[in-house]
Amino acid sequence: MHKIYDYPKSRAAFERALKLIPSGIYGHQGPAEGCYVPVEAFPLYSSKAQGSYLWDLDGNRFIDYMCAYGPNILGYHDPDVDEAAARQRAISDCTTLPNPIMIDFADLLVDTVASADWAFFAKNGNDVTTLAIMTARAYTHRKKIVFFKGYYHGVSPWTQKIDYAGVIEEDVMHNLYVEWNNLEQLREVFDTHKGEIAAVIAQPYMHGNFMDNELPAEGFWKEVRKLCTDEGTVLVVDDVRAGFRLDLAGSDHFFGFKADLICFCKALANGYNVSALCGQEFLKNTVSSMSYTGSYWMSAVPFAAGIACIEKMKRIDCPRLLDEKGRLLREGLTDAAREQGFDLHVTGAPSLFYLRVADDPSLRLHQEWVAECVKRGVFFTNHHNHFINASLSDEDIRETVEIAREAFAVLRERHPL
Amino acid sequence: MHKIYDYPKSRAAFERALKLIPSGIYGHQGPAEGCYVPVEAFPLYSSKAQGSYLWDLDGNRFIDYMCAYGPNILGYHDPDVDEAAARQRAISDCTTLPNPIMIDFADLLVDTVASADWAFFAKNGNDVTTLAIMTARAYTHRKKIVFFKGYYHGVSPWTQKIDYAGVIEEDVMHNLYVEWNNLEQLREVFDTHKGEIAAVIAQPYMHGNFMDNELPAEGFWKEVRKLCTDEGTVLVVDDVRAGFRLDLAGSDHFFGFKADLICFCKALANGYNVSALCGQEFLKNTVSSMSYTGSYWMSAVPFAAGIACIEKMKRIDCPRLLDEKGRLLREGLTDAAREQGFDLHVTGAPSLFYLRVADDPSLRLHQEWVAECVKRGVFFTNHHNHFINASLSDEDIRETVEIAREAFAVLRERHPL
Repeated sequence: MHKIYDYPKSRAAFERALKLIPSGIYGHQGPAEGCYVPVEAFPLYSSKAQGSYLWDLDGNRFIDYMCAYGPNILGYHDPDVDEAAARQRAISDCTTLPNPIMIDFADLLVDTVASADWAFFAKNGNDVTTLAIMTARAYTHRKKIVFFKGYYHGVSPWTQKIDYAGVIEEDVMHNLYVEWNNLEQLREVFDTHKGEIAAVIAQPYMHGNFMDNELPAEGFWKEVRKLCTDEGTVLVVDDVRAGFRLDLAGSDHFFGFKADLICFCKALANGYNVSALCGQEFLKNTVSSMSYTGSYWMSAVPFAAGIACIEKMKRIDCPRLLDEKGRLLREGLTDAAREQGFDLHVTGAPSLFYLRVADDPSLRLHQEWVAECVKRGVFFTNHHNHFINASLSDEDIRETVEIAREAFAVLRERHPL
Repeated sequence: MHKIYDYPKSRAAFERALKLIPSGIYGHQGPAEGCYVPVEAFPLYSSKAQGSYLWDLDGNRFIDYMCAYGPNILGYHDPDVDEAAARQRAISDCTTLPNPIMIDFADLLVDTVASADWAFFAKNGNDVTTLAIMTARAYTHRKKIVFFKGYYHGVSPWTQKIDYAGVIEEDVMHNLYVEWNNLEQLREVFDTHKGEIAAVIAQPYMHGNFMDNELPAEGFWKEVRKLCTDEGTVLVVDDVRAGFRLDLAGSDHFFGFKADLICFCKALANGYNVSALCGQEFLKNTVSSMSYTGSYWMSAVPFAAGIACIEKMKRIDCPRLLDEKGRLLREGLTDAAREQGFDLHVTGAPSLFYLRVADDPSLRLHQEWVAECVKRGVFFTNHHNHFINASLSDEDIRETVEIAREAFAVLRERHPL
């Protein structure tokens, strides 16, 4: 039996944080967004990280399946990335004029990403999804944007929901919503708003929170691509979350089509702070015409890290590796569930798997199981997809499955058949 | 006489960049925005940086008065900040759960900044100006925002201009514009839009581009503060550019008033990538209610850098130091101009001085003079305020004045009295 963790130091830190920081820890990394339920089962602060492991403030070690919510793709403290970054830091980082390593990084992205004829760098995923939408509006002289329900494209007002705090109706009045994989609805929206749709923006598959993740149906992307081309609409792929975990050439390439604009962040530099908008040649002049930049956007260290990260991902064939690890884990977890008579749904790509114990529509049983895993050292979350990183070992996976098995046994004892 | 620089390697790099990156170098760091005129006089890429110096690709050394457009406040590669950052990097940076150093940084800001009861961290100045506006709208349930003409608050659609590419009328339809230091206009706008104004957003003084910078008139801020309080409007100070160069307690404190929300970025961590929104207690719950975060927002290294930066700025009384250096430089430059019969206007705070050779309304004479300075190793820009950093030595200032003098002499020879 594994030791059951508790978190007195994390709790004390959070109490202190609540006095100094709105909601203590905001956003998806904090307890307010509902991914950590029951919150008592989760540590809230980390003290250090290495490879596939995270240690909390109380010295508990976790196999970390959130990977900083994506950025950790090669393992925390990857030596190749860290060395390249340190080498650049000794020379320069944030300076008045950019270092030409920025051009090298753009060159590498254009060489790597199938739909990239150019690259534009920023800091947040949100910076580049926003630039994509502005580019689509500038290019088409249209206003309307099609979203797929369950989407997440950042926190700018244009991509928030009308009932969210601080959002006004004008921010979202040109947003149109259709169901994922529903071509009929999409066609209807194009018919109803003929000549008005600037962009369709979508993640490469539906990896929303609080829902089983859903891959594109056969022929879906081909038809979306065709509709956009026919209607003169810019097709934006938000690859912030899935980027480089499915295909180094872009998740659009993985699913057999070509985006007009594609947004990267997270896995781009193994945790160093950079995002990128890439796109096709016909949109380059439009992007050039925009007024868009930020204080740190040309810092050289993240470019060096990004180059080292992409080169290493190529060297180790990272997407294939992550897929293999993800499949091994999926098999182990579903077997462990079955042994105790539970039905664990594992959806989405193996490298970005979403978990749901399907025996209880209230999701409470699922939350109980996740809690028992976390308290034994496997960092899952309740209602967000997970991430595999390349440093995750077979031994890590074996230990994870063992803990999952123990957690299912606890669940079965608590809820007898 | 100083050697005249040329830039063949910068030019070759820029040609390469144009193929891979929209406009080669976008935003204020590139030649498109008009701060580098004539562009031939300016290097476009840097190879390294140290203290107050920048080296370009061709090995030319510059005394850098742009300081990465603000972030460099202590000098490039400040040993105290770099050491604190390296220490944290060896432990952790971008991880699934935040490191409690985030709380320490918030604590230090709350302790340092007069109007800060709490702190919220992000990555761009733009992230926090946008959060400020969303917070004001959420708190007041109003839509309208008052800007001062000449403003710059980032690149989000809400703060761009209607004629900018990618901006739609709905983005800016609730924006109201008044002239800086014009209380009568401000009162009129409040009268006309009674009960509708969510926020007034302003830099602590007018440091716009292509205009002499203008300090607040006597009593201006006191009256703005009173109007906002009386009308239930949130007063947002955008201290992204001036922050910590006037007063470590905030530029509102420097000018004798208290903002409701204050935005920091740039000088916050000497070039490490972090921004902050600070504010008064009554707005904390509203910020807590927002959905607002990003992939790297809780990375620990910039927090460590920020703590070390603020502690050092306190230790050396940075604002006083920068003010003294700025005054010394201003005196030297205006004397050098006068010797050749030119009238150099130096406006704004000495630590953020704006330059204009006032003898020619077309600004071409000014551009010529700046070009002659740059080509001799003093990195000024034409139409943007400059920045002093703490590592700038008296010898640097002496050399700068000498070069400025030589440049004025060249100008006088070319344009005899």
